[in-house]
This record gives sequence, structure tokens and C-alpha cells, in this order.
Amino acid sequence: MIIVLKPDAKKEQIDHIVESIHEWGLEADVSHGSEQTIIGIIGDESLVRAKPLAAFPGVDNVMRVQKPYKRASIEFRTERTQIVIPPVRPGCREVVIGGNEVVVIAGPCSVEGREMLRNIGRHIQNSGAKILRAGAFKPRSSPYAFQGLGVKGIRYLADVRMELGIPIITEVMDTRDVELIAKFSDIVQVGARNMQNFSLLKVLGSIDKPVLLKRGLSNTIEELMMSAEYIMSSGNERVILCERGIRTFETYTRNTLDLSAVAVIKKESHLPVLLDPSHGTGHWDLVGPMSLAGVAVGADGLMIEVHHKPEEALSDGPQSLLPKTFDNVMHELKKVAVAVGRSIGN
Amino acid sequence: MIIVLKPDAKKEQIDHIVESIHEWGLEADVSHGSEQTIIGIIGDESLVRAKPLAAFPGVDNVMRVQKPYKRASIEFRTERTQIVIPPVRPGCREVVIGGNEVVVIAGPCSVEGREMLRNIGRHIQNSGAKILRAGAFKPRSSPYAFQGLGVKGIRYLADVRMELGIPIITEVMDTRDVELIAKFSDIVQVGARNMQNFSLLKVLGSIDKPVLLKRGLSNTIEELMMSAEYIMSSGNERVILCERGIRTFETYTRNTLDLSAVAVIKKESHLPVLLDPSHGTGHWDLVGPMSLAGVAVGADGLMIEVHHKPEEALSDGPQSLLPKTFDNVMHELKKVAVAVGRSIGN
Amino acid sequence: MIIVLKPDAKKEQIDHIVESIHEWGLEADVSHGSEQTIIGIIGDESLVRAKPLAAFPGVDNVMRVQKPYKRASIEFRTERTQIVIPPVRPGCREVVIGGNEVVVIAGPCSVEGREMLRNIGRHIQNSGAKILRAGAFKPRSSPYAFQGLGVKGIRYLADVRMELGIPIITEVMDTRDVELIAKFSDIVQVGARNMQNFSLLKVLGSIDKPVLLKRGLSNTIEELMMSAEYIMSSGNERVILCERGIRTFETYTRNTLDLSAVAVIKKESHLPVLLDPSHGTGHWDLVGPMSLAGVAVGADGLMIEVHHKPEEALSDGPQSLLPKTFDNVMHELKKVAVAVGRSIGN
Amino acid sequence: MIIVLKPDAKKEQIDHIVESIHEWGLEADVSHGSEQTIIGIIGDESLVRAKPLAAFPGVDNVMRVQKPYKRASIEFRTERTQIVIPPVRPGCREVVIGGNEVVVIAGPCSVEGREMLRNIGRHIQNSGAKILRAGAFKPRSSPYAFQGLGVKGIRYLADVRMELGIPIITEVMDTRDVELIAKFSDIVQVGARNMQNFSLLKVLGSIDKPVLLKRGLSNTIEELMMSAEYIMSSGNERVILCERGIRTFETYTRNTLDLSAVAVIKKESHLPVLLDPSHGTGHWDLVGPMSLAGVAVGADGLMIEVHHKPEEALSDGPQSLLPKTFDNVMHELKKVAVAVGRSIGN
Repeated sequence: MIIVLKPDAKKEQIDHIVESIHEWGLEADVSHGSEQTIIGIIGDESLVRAKPLAAFPGVDNVMRVQKPYKRASIEFRTERTQIVIPPVRPGCREVVIGGNEVVVIAGPCSVEGREMLRNIGRHIQNSGAKILRAGAFKPRSSPYAFQGLGVKGIRYLADVRMELGIPIITEVMDTRDVELIAKFSDIVQVGARNMQNFSLLKVLGSIDKPVLLKRGLSNTIEELMMSAEYIMSSGNERVILCERGIRTFETYTRNTLDLSAVAVIKKESHLPVLLDPSHGTGHWDLVGPMSLAGVAVGADGLMIEVHHKPEEALSDGPQSLLPKTFDNVMHELKKVAVAVGRSIGN
Repeated sequence: MIIVLKPDAKKEQIDHIVESIHEWGLEADVSHGSEQTIIGIIGDESLVRAKPLAAFPGVDNVMRVQKPYKRASIEFRTERTQIVIPPVRPGCREVVIGGNEVVVIAGPCSVEGREMLRNIGRHIQNSGAKILRAGAFKPRSSPYAFQGLGVKGIRYLADVRMELGIPIITEVMDTRDVELIAKFSDIVQVGARNMQNFSLLKVLGSIDKPVLLKRGLSNTIEELMMSAEYIMSSGNERVILCERGIRTFETYTRNTLDLSAVAVIKKESHLPVLLDPSHGTGHWDLVGPMSLAGVAVGADGLMIEVHHKPEEALSDGPQSLLPKTFDNVMHELKKVAVAVGRSIGN
Repeated sequence: MIIVLKPDAKKEQIDHIVESIHEWGLEADVSHGSEQTIIGIIGDESLVRAKPLAAFPGVDNVMRVQKPYKRASIEFRTERTQIVIPPVRPGCREVVIGGNEVVVIAGPCSVEGREMLRNIGRHIQNSGAKILRAGAFKPRSSPYAFQGLGVKGIRYLADVRMELGIPIITEVMDTRDVELIAKFSDIVQVGARNMQNFSLLKVLGSIDKPVLLKRGLSNTIEELMMSAEYIMSSGNERVILCERGIRTFETYTRNTLDLSAVAVIKKESHLPVLLDPSHGTGHWDLVGPMSLAGVAVGADGLMIEVHHKPEEALSDGPQSLLPKTFDNVMHELKKVAVAVGRSIGN
Repeated sequence: MIIVLKPDAKKEQIDHIVESIHEWGLEADVSHGSEQTIIGIIGDESLVRAKPLAAFPGVDNVMRVQKPYKRASIEFRTERTQIVIPPVRPGCREVVIGGNEVVVIAGPCSVEGREMLRNIGRHIQNSGAKILRAGAFKPRSSPYAFQGLGVKGIRYLADVRMELGIPIITEVMDTRDVELIAKFSDIVQVGARNMQNFSLLKVLGSIDKPVLLKRGLSNTIEELMMSAEYIMSSGNERVILCERGIRTFETYTRNTLDLSAVAVIKKESHLPVLLDPSHGTGHWDLVGPMSLAGVAVGADGLMIEVHHKPEEALSDGPQSLLPKTFDNVMHELKKVAVAVGRSIGN
């Protein structure tokens, strides 16, 4: 931690800061420059990060030197984390997220019924997707929009999961639903709007299922890591990160999918990172190109929305791929995966 | 709703859309321009807002004409809503938010103890603040930061409330805590990070206490209105909106306080709107000027953080005013309030 | 300047950096922490700011300690700069920007003709505005939109200026036009889109007229200061800053007017700062409230667009005030100015 | 164009608008809905785009239906534009931008000397880059930073160009320099900060060299198209677009490289589009992954900064690749190019 003092900081103000640092059990390195005095704090920065150093009289600015997250950082664990989803039932295979294979997760935005879920699930499974996605509890910006089938949706997911032998992922929005969803879903998803729902994150630290954590619309990569840290420090180390678009001034796309976040996370963290080009663009015809880019940049997986009749979808139809378009995208993806030394699908 | 078709849209695509509109019980007005065909949907737009119109073949773009919110809109209730906080105990006065008085809410960021809360509460009360603020459950971006005193903090708040006869406001972060907080707090606060925690909003629609809803860091004014709509459509019409800064590329300030949001909300909604210059700027010495601007632009109230020793605050010290600085700000605020035909304090 | 090294930085990498610092004539203060080594550069930071320190092997991060601007900073000149616009002709009064008076600059967006300019000019002059604004060269995002009257517009401005005895301000967009505009205009305006047109800034450093520099749509306050520094370091110290709205995700307003920028600039710089609520909001009915807020927050002046027939304006009609609305706003502004110890108008 | 009226719009206000539309030579389609009246303007929208429709009494909102750009749009020319750079001298080959080959442009950020330019130029040419980039006039946010070698830099570029037989691209910042740069450079570059320097764009419309137009830091894709339209409508149809990162709240990367912009431009325009991962990320170790993603998403070329000694670069060292890292990136790029059916290099 570096404390930059105001040019006119007084000696007693400097002494006061140094004494406080000593009280906290750390050492202070005071460096008197020609224009400004700087105090470096030597030792474990985490001990003082919560202190309101900028509120001390005489302080101009405080700069952090160390990263605020630990368990999510590449220094904590140099080997890349692989999240293993066990076989759904005997005869099925496990799925590994964070390994050589780029794992494709696909499915409708919402569970709209058992039949449609089964049909889409079977289709994407045949095309090489390894996990089925669909929301039962839906975060919608309007209270008048379809809110999801709720518990009934979870039941349909559980049924189709067993029937097809494909692992599922679905979103949790409420601390009160964590137990139910963690029981039936292979991966529990935290949506972008709940990335900083800290109560929810803490509860998810106590379950024994992997958590997929989506980056919030206006959150930095560091904040995403800190939210992962909430789950990890509460006891659940199996966190998968997901970039799904941030909010910018651009209006053509629904969000601006930040592909560099994938590259940054691969550099700074050992956790696997996925990409959601469906929410990230909001347009089905941009999903293909951005998926290819996602594999090229190093994503460990993709989440793609597929619907057999987008114009009747109860949510997010315009960004859903038709099953046959999904097949074409999968076909292209495999070639790029090979080009970067990875694999996709069977 | 206006549907703009692609220049090469086919007749059967247009017919298909028109038929669907008729099926939904609405009328379609097809207008063939020289370059593009446009379909206007006549009638209550809310009936089709959830339909994935952009997913229909041949559609280029869909434009909403009507506002997506109803109960929060100025058309719904032309008289401005006044939220009345009843007297804490006999002998005290009620507080009205949304009336002629600009209501100042002040207090420490967090409840750190009963004593400090009482001292700060008494001070700000004497200076003209009408409501005491302090967090017991704290949303912190780091799991290693002070998380608030929790239930003990609520107890201290309840004690000081009765002792001083001042209404209190505190934040709720978890659906499981709503009942407790609604029981003891005069106003229940939803923080910026929970503005789109829809599960929480729905539960808050069933309590009989006013809800202060803070705008999210990357949320539009319209989305803020929609979140208010969640609470209102669930049964609780007593919603107070609050602008607290949005996230931009500027790094000097913690957030960019969007004062024009106050003016827009006064124009588009009947709900009262407050301003939080402490979180909005992150610097105590910007709180005064931005508070003055807030009163001038028409805010119905201000939320200001005050701490007797900011350098020892357990959260947000750098943006907290010292009690005597708070007094100076209150003094200036009163003059601006009078200049715009309003009042502040006793 | 603080150089944070990577945890695994090697001794020879550290030595290499320290040697380079010595070569540049500065001292290095190496501090070996438990987790990371930090090198502080002692002395005038401006000597190394241009060095690509982050490119040195072993470096994790570089943090600036000193401000990159000098002449624009409050430390450079503790007394606030006042820009004096001399009387247009004998019998007229000078105008001081940066003094106790909040100077109102008003007029149409574009010069559309001599007659309309004279009428609006006379009106706003009578209402207390001190400077007439109107564009002859217009920066329009579309090549098919009205591009301004050009040289003819400058002539009309010059005529009306003498006739009414009111100073004028108009925009320059091209280095080739600087001489002409500097000859006829009392203040030369640099628009938001040219804030980092460095060639233009350098040329403006050589004229003897004050320059009004608008903040770019996506520029930080610091970058605005640096652009002022370009003009000042080229020889022209008479710079007026202007906040006119930044680009965010919000779509209701044309831009997000960052009022806190005014407060920050007053704290960090001695230069006067104005506010442009017309471009900042894009809606005429938000101009009044934001102007009041601007005066309250401490702006030294306001730029307001006025048009006698907004629906026929050749540019920016929707954000222009009718003359009589302008009068009402001026009336309200005077009261707020008095409340904050300043004056407006005659 | 769709005009949405206020719910309380009066008949005479509606009549007034309809009459004005007729005066402009267009037809109006008035549709009285249950809640609001809507007026559709039938005919060529470009005739009314400049009219301040939102300023008419009774108008709530105005929505554009047609795209504001013509010549840059895919409807204007369905075949993709290929920009041919003729051979520098006999014996050299032409370079085609917008064809099957992904063209790599590489070189130092600035011309620092003839020798270094020649060395880097020879290296990148051997590795498969087809065009040499280097700035002689540098747009720097600080007046105290290296401003480029200017005319001398242009001379060095011209020399190395002939010597190596490689086409060059360099930036123009001032209308007064256009003639000089257009004479010696094969492509003239407009930097992000000048994307809306409309005077410059107009002058570039009159030269006979291709123009590479970079997207501004806070500009929408549509605005980029409109700036292309300035050049094209002034007579120069040879425009190459370039995405180089936009400004967001994220601070890890220098900018947020918006890869979806590439996909959108390929969909909406016939112009070729390049990607600049060096400025787009600001970190040399993110340039490789983002370049791979750029080729996968469909970019027609890449601009990559290469320096043999980044730690001594006079500008942008931290984002420059070492020559041997550049070679590795080129090697990987070729594989991805093949995977998406394109080629790179010899």
C-alpha cells in the first residue's frame, strides 16, 4: 500500500499515520521526495486494506499494490483448476470444465415446458453440447414479463437431465432457493445482476456443487474475482467465471462482450472462464462470429441459447439460435478449436 | 410498438406478423414506405411487450412507443406522492418525504456501536437532519472487509431510534432478513447492487414500510422505474427513488453522480427522489457542493454520511463528513433551499 | 512514480531498472516487501513520465504519484484565474469570467442569419446574458446535416457584436481557420470533439484571445487539464474549461452532465469552469434545473442555447430555450446565485 | 421517421406537424392509438432527418427508421469493397485489403529513426506482414510527451518504403499536413481522437489514397459509419474502418476492444474492417490472444505494434511485441486464418 501525502502535509500528520501503521503491526517506509512525501506500507496489505487511509488528515491519495483477491489468483494455485461434473447416471461420461476441451453449454433461455426442453436438449446433445442450460427462475427487468416456471421448471429440468443423461445448469436468484437448486442442478448459476448479491454468494460457499458466476454489467474484472473470492472463502472452491457483456454507450448490441476479459482472467486466475455470446450480443446472427472469437481467445467454454421457434420464445427469442444454425456454428467452432490446440464436442 | 421490416421482407413474412398481432387481440397498421415497410401495433402495448417480435423472420428492428412502467409514471398519478413517516413515539413529529421540505438523512455508513450511533444521531438531529441512516448488513465488494454488525446492529439502531425519537433507515440485502428489518426500521433501503435483485423487490412489495430504492451503478433511469414497478405491483406503493452515482470511465470520483436523473424522474414520475452525494462522489470535500446542486435541481432529500472520526470508520471513511463540516453544509443548504422555494431542517 | 515488480522479478531485472533511473538523473528507493518489491522514483516525476517503465522486464505495474499537468494545477497558481474580456467598444463594459459573477453565455446553436442573430442577441442581452454564442462552423455527425454558414456566419457575428456591443464566442474546428476566428471573436471555442485535436490546441496557444475548451465526450477530467496544458504551454494562459456532458449508457438524456467535474476542477485547478446544460442534457426542459444546479455547485458561468423558434432551428432545436423560458430561468438563477454568495446579470 | 406524440397533444399541434411534413414534400400517416397518436413519415427519411422534429409542440419522441448513412451501407453496394494498394515499385506485389487474405500491418508506434524503422520493417516483412506502420505525427495526451519526428519521420518512412518495397501507413492530424502525407503514404490514417474531426475528414475526401479510419474512444458504430460517409460523400470511396477499443469503466485494459463491432460492421457495411489489438488492450501479452480472436471474428486485417526494445520506445512500449513474439503470434494466426477459410502472410 502506498500513501501519497498532500504537498502541504504537516509533520504531525505524517507521524500520526506512521504510528497507526505501527499499531496495526506493520512497517512504514517514509520517503521524502522533492514535491511530495510518500509512505509505503511493508507487509501483508490485506491487514490494512479495510482501513480508511484516505480519510487521514494530510493524505492525498492511496494506492494499492497487491491484488485484493487471494484464492482466485494465479499465485494461489499455479495449476489451472479443472471442474469435474460427474456422470449424471451410470453409462454417462463426466464433463470437465477447464481442461483441453472447450465445453459447450446450450439450451433455451427459459424452461417453457418438459417437451420443448427434451427436444432442444436432445438436439444440442447430439450436436456436441455437453451441458443443458435453461432458466426456471428468471430475472426479468419488468414485473410484467414471464418470470419463469419456478419449481415446476426445476422438476422438468431434473426429468430431462435423467432421461437424456446430460448435466444441467440453472440460475438461482434467492438465498431461499439455493438448497432446492443445488440439489437438482449439476452447476448453479449466478446471473450478472446478482454478481454482487453478497448474501447469495456466501450461501453458495456452503454447497457442494460448482457455481458459475457471471460478470455484472458494470463490474470490473477485479470485482468479478472478488465475488469469486466470496464463494471460495466461504468454503466452495469450485467456481467457474463467465463473461457475458458489459454495459457501454454502444446501442447496436445489447451489451459489449469483453473478450479481453477472458484473456485477462486466464492470465490472473487459475479458474476456468466461459463466454456467453447470446446475452453478450443480443442478436442471434452475431452469436456465431463471437463464439469463434471466444474459442480463439481461449475461453474454456461457451453458453449458447438455442430455441426451436425463437419467435415464440417466452424470453430472449431474438438472441436464440435455431437448432440447425447451432449445428453450423458447432461445425465452425470445431475447426477453430483445433487451430488453437483444443477440442470441442465428441 | 413499431415494427420496422427489412427492405427485402417478403409478403408472407408480413402476413405472418400481422396474423400474430391479430391473434394477440390487437390491430396492425401496415404502412408501405418507399424503402421499408413499417407495422404499427395499435392498442395496449403491454400486451405484446413480452413477445419476441425481433425474432420474427423479416423484422429489422422493433421500437417501443409506450413507457414500460405504469404505476411509477406521472400519468398514473398526477399528484406527487408524499411518503409520510409517522412519529417514532408520542411527542415526536412525522416526517414527509416528497413535500416542500428537503429531508436530510444523515449518519454513519455502518453501525459500529451503540454509543457512536447515539452521538452521531444526536448531532445530526440537532443540525436539522430528520432521519438517521446506518448500515447493519453491509454489501462489501471484499469478503475480507467489515460485513456489518448484523442483527446486533439492528438492535442498536432500534434503541437509538427510541432514545432520540428519530426515524431510521437501514439496508436489507437478503430476502430472509426482510421481516426483521421491516419490523424495526422506518424505511427499508435497497442498495444499488440489489436494484435488480427481483426476488428481494417482490418480497418488499408485501411489507408495510416505505422502501428507498437506489439506482444501480449501470442502470438506466427507466430500469430504476421498472424496479420500483416490481415493488409497487406487488402491493407496496410507498417507494422512494435515490440517485447515488453511476459508473463511467472517470476515475477521480468514485462514481459519476447523475443529477439530471433527478430532473428526469421529477418529470416522468410522481415518486419522490433523493440524492446520495457521499457514495456519488466518494470524497467528503465534494459532498457539500454536490448537495447544494442536488437541492437546486429539485431533489426531495439528501443522504449524507457523517462520522465523528472518519479515519477510524469501519467503512467509507473518506467520504464521511465530520459533524462540524456537516453543520456548515446544512447551513449553506438552507439558503439554496429557500432560493428554490423549499425548506430544510427545523 | 512507483514501480511495482512482479513477485518473481529477478535481481538483475531490478538492477537494470535502478540503473536506468540513475541514468535519467533520478534516485531510486527500493523497498523489499514480503510479497513484492517496490521501487519509488524520487525527484521530478515529469522526467520519467514518458519512459515506458511498464515495458521493463519484471515490472508488474507503474503508478503515477504526481499530477501530469502543471500550469493548469492549483499548485501552479493559488489565486483563481480571472479571464477579462475587454469592452467591445467604448461605452460597453468588460466581462470577467472567473470572478464573483456567474457569467451567462447565450444564443442560438448556429448562426442562421443576421436578423435572427440580432434579435436573439438583443433579447438575451436584455435578460442579463453577457456574451453571445452562435456557431458559424458546425461539427455535425452527419455530412448531410447543416454545416454552418462558415465565413458568412463569422461576418454576421462580427456585425451583431458591434451593433449590440456584446462580446461573442464561436467555435473553431480547423487549424486553417484559427486566424480568422481569433480576429473577430472575443473567445475562441474548442468543441468536445476537438478536445484532443492537439494540432489545433497548439495553434491556439499562439493567439491572444481566451480559449474555451470543452471536455470531450469520453475524456477524464485529467485529460481535460492536459489539453488545457497544451494551450498554456504553447503560450496562451487564458483558458476557460467547460463541462458539457459525457457519454454513458443512459439514453434518456443526450449526455450525462457531470456536475461533480465542476467541483473537482475548482479543487484541482485555478482556471474558471463553465457548464453547458443544453448539450449536456439535450432536452430544453432539463436546462433550467441543471442550470440551477450548476450555479449551486460553483460553475463560473453557463452556456445556454436560445432560439425564438426551436422547431425551425437548423441545429439542436430540441435543446433550445424559447426567449421567454430563458427569462424565467435567468430569474430563478439569480436567486440561487445570491444564495451561494454570487451574482448573475446586471 | 416515426413521431410519437404526447398523450395530451392537441389537434392543432398534430395538424401543424402534418402540414410541415407536407411542406417538406413528404406524406404523413397519422395513427390514433388508444393511448397515443403516432405520425409516420412516408418517403425518403433523409429529407427530414435534419429537421428538429422533437422541438415541435406536442411531440414526445422521434424515432428514426432508416439508417442515416448511405454510401457506407451494405445496401449501397452488396459486393464487399476491396482496397487495392498498388506495388510500391516494380517487382513488388500489390496488397488487397478486404479480400480473402487477412492483412497484417505491423511496425513501431512511432518513427524513432531511419535505422530502427528499417530493421523492424525488414523483420515484420519477413514474418508475413504486408504493410509497415509508424507514426511521424503523434497525438499524445501530454504536451510534454514525445510528439513525433514530424516531416523528418515522413522522410524516413518514404526511404524505408522504397528500400524494402513495402507499403506504409501513417497518421495525419492536421488539415495542413494532408497533402504531404497523402503524397508519401500508401494509406492515410485517421486516429481515434480525430474520428469526428470533420474538417479533416472532408479534406481526406479529396485525396486519391485510401483512408484508414479508427473508431473514436466513445463513438458508436453508427457514428463511425457516418464519419466514413463524410469521406465518401466528399469523393473518396476508399475507406477502411478500424476498431481499436472503446472507453469503459474497466481499468485493467487500456481500452475495451469491441470485437462485436467487427461482426456488426461486416453485417451492415461493405467496407473492410481492421482491428488494432495493441491500442485496444495496452498490454503486449494480450495482443496475441486478441489477434487470434480478431481473425476468428472476421477482421480483414490487424494492426500490431512491434518494437525491438519496448523499454526504450518513445511511445507505447508496454503494448509493443518483441520481434520474436510477433513471429510466434503470426505463426498462431495462420492456423486460425485457415480454420475460418482465410489466409495470412505469404
